[in-house]
Amino acid sequence: MSIKEILKSSESFIGQEVSINGWVRNHRKQKDFGFIDFSDGTCFEHLQLIYNASLDSFEEVLKIKIGSSIEVNGEIVKSEGKGQSVDLKIKKIKVLGDCPDDYPIQPKQHTREFLREQAYLRPRTNLFQAVFRIRSVASYAIHTYFQERDYVYVHTPILTANDGEGAGQVFQVTTLDLDRVAKSGKVEYDKDFFGKKVGLAVTGQLEGETFAMAYNKIYTFGPTFRAENSNTKTHASEFWMIEPEIAFCDLEELMNIEEDMLKFIVSYVLEHCSSEMAFLDKFVEPGLIAKLTKLINSKFTRITHEAVITTLKEAKVKWEFEPQYGEDIAREHEKYITEHFGGPVFITDWPKDIKAFYMKLNTDGKTVRAVDLEVPGAGELMGGSQREENYDRLQNRIKEMGMTKFDLDWYLNLRKYGGCVHSGFGMGFERLLIYLTGVDNIRDVIPYPRTPYNCEY
Amino acid sequence: MSIKEILKSSESFIGQEVSINGWVRNHRKQKDFGFIDFSDGTCFEHLQLIYNASLDSFEEVLKIKIGSSIEVNGEIVKSEGKGQSVDLKIKKIKVLGDCPDDYPIQPKQHTREFLREQAYLRPRTNLFQAVFRIRSVASYAIHTYFQERDYVYVHTPILTANDGEGAGQVFQVTTLDLDRVAKSGKVEYDKDFFGKKVGLAVTGQLEGETFAMAYNKIYTFGPTFRAENSNTKTHASEFWMIEPEIAFCDLEELMNIEEDMLKFIVSYVLEHCSSEMAFLDKFVEPGLIAKLTKLINSKFTRITHEAVITTLKEAKVKWEFEPQYGEDIAREHEKYITEHFGGPVFITDWPKDIKAFYMKLNTDGKTVRAVDLEVPGAGELMGGSQREENYDRLQNRIKEMGMTKFDLDWYLNLRKYGGCVHSGFGMGFERLLIYLTGVDNIRDVIPYPRTPYNCEY
Repeated sequence: MSIKEILKSSESFIGQEVSINGWVRNHRKQKDFGFIDFSDGTCFEHLQLIYNASLDSFEEVLKIKIGSSIEVNGEIVKSEGKGQSVDLKIKKIKVLGDCPDDYPIQPKQHTREFLREQAYLRPRTNLFQAVFRIRSVASYAIHTYFQERDYVYVHTPILTANDGEGAGQVFQVTTLDLDRVAKSGKVEYDKDFFGKKVGLAVTGQLEGETFAMAYNKIYTFGPTFRAENSNTKTHASEFWMIEPEIAFCDLEELMNIEEDMLKFIVSYVLEHCSSEMAFLDKFVEPGLIAKLTKLINSKFTRITHEAVITTLKEAKVKWEFEPQYGEDIAREHEKYITEHFGGPVFITDWPKDIKAFYMKLNTDGKTVRAVDLEVPGAGELMGGSQREENYDRLQNRIKEMGMTKFDLDWYLNLRKYGGCVHSGFGMGFERLLIYLTGVDNIRDVIPYPRTPYNCEY
Repeated sequence: MSIKEILKSSESFIGQEVSINGWVRNHRKQKDFGFIDFSDGTCFEHLQLIYNASLDSFEEVLKIKIGSSIEVNGEIVKSEGKGQSVDLKIKKIKVLGDCPDDYPIQPKQHTREFLREQAYLRPRTNLFQAVFRIRSVASYAIHTYFQERDYVYVHTPILTANDGEGAGQVFQVTTLDLDRVAKSGKVEYDKDFFGKKVGLAVTGQLEGETFAMAYNKIYTFGPTFRAENSNTKTHASEFWMIEPEIAFCDLEELMNIEEDMLKFIVSYVLEHCSSEMAFLDKFVEPGLIAKLTKLINSKFTRITHEAVITTLKEAKVKWEFEPQYGEDIAREHEKYITEHFGGPVFITDWPKDIKAFYMKLNTDGKTVRAVDLEVPGAGELMGGSQREENYDRLQNRIKEMGMTKFDLDWYLNLRKYGGCVHSGFGMGFERLLIYLTGVDNIRDVIPYPRTPYNCEY
């Protein structure tokens, strides 16, 4: 029996005797009675275990420690307390695993910094219990969205000799003994595992495109790595990314998909994690549920980069960074734009020089059919583009951007062998979670975050 | 409109005019008429496009090349051919992306070795179209199985300073410039990205356990890496693994879960990939569907390692490797055992010396509560165990196996802070796919396989 099952139809359990395994989260004792705050991990809610001096094992139960695992038998009774419909009146309790008094997770407010150092224990706290269940449910929402719409899930390679975007800094992967490299004075790649220099993928998009040319609609969902030496709240060296790619799809249709997918995920999480969301709304980001509900019911704005710059220039705001045509926009601009339009904004047709080589060149020769989705409070949530489907133009861009050292013939060939208009986007999963949970540090939405000089557990 | 939608209720489409985008897989021409074998990637089945000399654009359509992408308009008509219910009678056709005559994927039998070298094009062939859709559907079956049963999906870290099993060979990950290491003659880990030696995870189990102690039931599903220099049909350096972990669960209950999960996945794939499975049954492994159907309906045998050795010794078989109590079993033994029992066999209670440090020691002091699932035709499909929940015994095993150099205090602490009986298993996803598809080489069930000296695309 699980707490989740009981709470699903708690009234019908009243009077029944049940047996549950789980953990003691808190234990409040009075002279003649006590309460145990009991979680079995199957749902966000706890069950209150009640007992009093009439219990044969009263003295033993009094000694049960916070953090210990127990098997409890008893009767489900109507609760006289607030906030719960039923309690469990203890008949028998058995300690399965004890817990010492110096257990780090005590029923008090711990700082997130402290809990980060106890990453292996933090899912036992309310905050992280909520965050990581939402992470799981949101993952499934994403799979469900795409699978129900006949997308094929592709596991693109993590180990790669390519450098997908020609940008992101890459971790090198090797089986060479570095001490021996140092000693011998030479790097013999022919003796390395793959016989050449190999790194961790910064994107699966290019390989994803190869599958879109066979299955029409595909998506990836896997870990991605960037060796950027940034210590910010939104950067991690290892994070998960979703990269859908759709054949016969232009940028307008791509934006439809992005909008539809995001609304689906948000709705799914609100429905399936209502207790977790209520908790976060109350203790982490007041207004969170209203914010997400508003998103579901809004129509996303679509505007070109050029029009955004004009809007920014016309705004009566003293900018830290002056908005410029032909240049990227800053955080303050993103913020202004989503507030100005009162909701999510697709910014399209970016200057080609600040975007990746594979994006479709517009007829103006200056901009590309790229789109970033800016979301209130979270900034850029997705980045996508229509891909350059013209062989010659793509080859030119590869040359212009000095990427000829990579073997991209296979990627170019997609434009030769039955190529077509196609588009795709990438969404950082943790950025989505930050938006969904209101938890503002990427280190707190990844089970075991990796950042510069930090690789614990 | 997609071919999948049309074929779902093909009768109702007869007489209707539709427009579809897709690719030409074959083109057979006669003097006065022609057939185009047309796929849009939304399902395994193709649609036959028919036309004859009465078509205005007859001469142009005749020139359409294999591999090219087209947009076709026409009427759905009852098929006069075998093997399909409807055809599409072309009214208008537009070439979206041409394809040259030297296109590598021609409508003939290509060897799998050849197609491996064209990995970016092979999903366009029937075999790989089937295999990689099954890979996608099986992935979703796995997520569905666990999510519907309230397991929490955990993304365990890929970058790690631990060596999970104390066994598997690990790829090192670094941002040190190896040329500079060679030049300077020293390896300065304090200047490496994480300030220490870090590698790619060979398992997520240990971190998975930490979450099982908070959520009760969890699973992982992610890429795993082994730098083993093996060139066999079943080894890859990068593969995906599923690792469930369940609190308050002993080995018997674990076997129930393994059996139930496997039957669920097999049923799901048979139901959702019936065309793909029929193709594989016909061309790859005759009897495949019967084999899988039998598995669903069988009760898996449970037998100890000791009893297996006795059975092997009593068998009237000349072994290449003589079966021995206290030792591992060979492929020939696995094969014999599954045939002997006529189905899947759980082998339990293995000699401790050939198993991992975290497995629960039996009272005999010699064996551990480990279980391998052996499946007819595929060998070991899953490996699991009840975990050692006793702090002192676990600490002893870590010492005995010389693993004290790793910081496993956090892992040990799980036994101190409300520990409990718990169990888990690992299933190599590609091994499952080999079993499900009958395709016997791991290189052919991974989009872009990585093996020694092979890291293309």
